Parts: sequence; structure tokens; C-alpha cells
Amino acid sequence: MSSDCVFCKIVADEIPSSRVYEDDTKIAFMDIQPARPGHVLLVPRKHYDRLTDMPGEETGELLTALPRLAAAVVKAVEADGFNVFQSNGACAGQVVPHVHFHIIPRHDDDGLRFHLKSGSAEKGDIEEIRKRIAEAMGIKDSK
Amino acid sequence: MSSDCVFCKIVADEIPSSRVYEDDTKIAFMDIQPARPGHVLLVPRKHYDRLTDMPGEETGELLTALPRLAAAVVKAVEADGFNVFQSNGACAGQVVPHVHFHIIPRHDDDGLRFHLKSGSAEKGDIEEIRKRIAEAMGIKDSK
Repeated sequence: MSSDCVFCKIVADEIPSSRVYEDDTKIAFMDIQPARPGHVLLVPRKHYDRLTDMPGEETGELLTALPRLAAAVVKAVEADGFNVFQSNGACAGQVVPHVHFHIIPRHDDDGLRFHLKSGSAEKGDIEEIRKRIAEAMGIKDSK
Repeated sequence: MSSDCVFCKIVADEIPSSRVYEDDTKIAFMDIQPARPGHVLLVPRKHYDRLTDMPGEETGELLTALPRLAAAVVKAVEADGFNVFQSNGACAGQVVPHVHFHIIPRHDDDGLRFHLKSGSAEKGDIEEIRKRIAEAMGIKDSK
């Protein structure tokens, strides 16, 4: 637990939350500033600032809950679909530095937009960057 | 495999892709229309239209790769952070109906914005929706 982390305090019940699920390693609760009604956060009990600080096995364990939780959200608000969203670092919009996954239900024409600018990377860059990522993954040439 | 699914064809090597990782159950490759240089997709080999169609154990297994893959992306483009993003349904922006997770590296002042309108749900709604989600999760009252 990080002593000044609001999500650690929610996990420890030092700050109240509207929980929809909990087990030994994770909790899910309503976002108090929902992007859309039904917006839920899925959080590991253990503190990690960023996803890259978290062991892969623990990430996998956390996210086994994702399909069931998303289905419950979709059912509760009769959604047409949903987004899963997660941020790491202030530049990515992370406000609380404790790993959390947003589940945001969506409806046709709900007015919510995720603006992903496309095509900002030249095609030529892709192969160069691919090589660097594959190398960082320990793969010499997996193309 | 779904015969008309572009990601199934990429998995089957019927369509070329720039892979950065692969194992028995999943592959990761460069997005051909990157939101930012280094934008990667993580995809299960097995076809599921939406995350809610996928067994939780398989979702967990897929996402054990997320921290390591994100760390490789961050390293490759010297990013300050990253977003993980996943869409289900046309209303949520899903273009290819085969479960895929976007890993999008971020830099300070990169100009990318995810516009999450906040506060569209009244506070009073949250408790009512919480009850419905918790009920759908099989929890009578976990608050």
C-alpha cells in the first residue's frame, strides 16, 4: 500500500466507494466522475503506479474479471457496446497513479468520442520501430 | 477462425503483418494506421467478436503479455507513458470485430486527446446503476 494513494485507501476501506465486485486480489467500483452512466473501474488491491510495474501474471489474473464485469455493466445500462481504457503517466491522462482499467459502456450516438489521430507515423517508420520493439521483446526477427 | 475476418487472416499469415511478438495463443503486430508511432495491437489467435464473448481465463492469458509488450513499446520510442484501449461494438469505435487491445505510446504534449466527457451521469444514478451491476455480478450488496 502506498500511504498517499486514493485507490489504496479505497481498497483499505479508508475512503468509501460504490463497489460492484471484489475478491482477494482486486476490486471494482463506480467511477465518481463517470464518462457515461455505468462507468466502472477495475483495480488490483496491490499498489502499482503503472502497468509496466506490474508482473504479467498479476495483470492476467486481474483481467480474468474483465469479460464478466463488462457483461454486467452492459446489462445494467442496456449498452450497445463498451470501451476498456487504461492510462499510464500524466502525458497519457493518468490522474491516480495506481493501475486501474476503465470500463465505459457505450450507446449508439452517445456523443462520446476517442480521438485517435491516425497516420501521424510515416509508413517507413513502422518497420524501423517494429525492429526496435521486437528486439526489446527478445525476438531477433519475427516478421 | 472467422473466414472474413482480417485479423484471423493476419493470424493465419494469409495477410502480412509486422509482428513484434507471438506465441501459441496470441500475436502482437504494428497498427498500420498508428495513432502514434509505435502503436501496437495485441490479439488472441482465436476469434472472438467482443471481449464479452471471450472466456475470462483466455482474456487473462492474453493480457499477461501486456506489461512486457508495453515496456518494449515504451523503450522503442522512448515514450513518457502509454494508453491501453479496447473497443467493443461499432458504437465504441470497433472497426475489426476480432478482440484486440491497442497499446499507444504517449509523449508529453503529443497532442493526442481522449475526450472523456465527465459528469454526464447524475450522482443519484450511480447507486442505482451500482445495484444493477452488482446484481448482474451475482452480488446482493457488496457496498
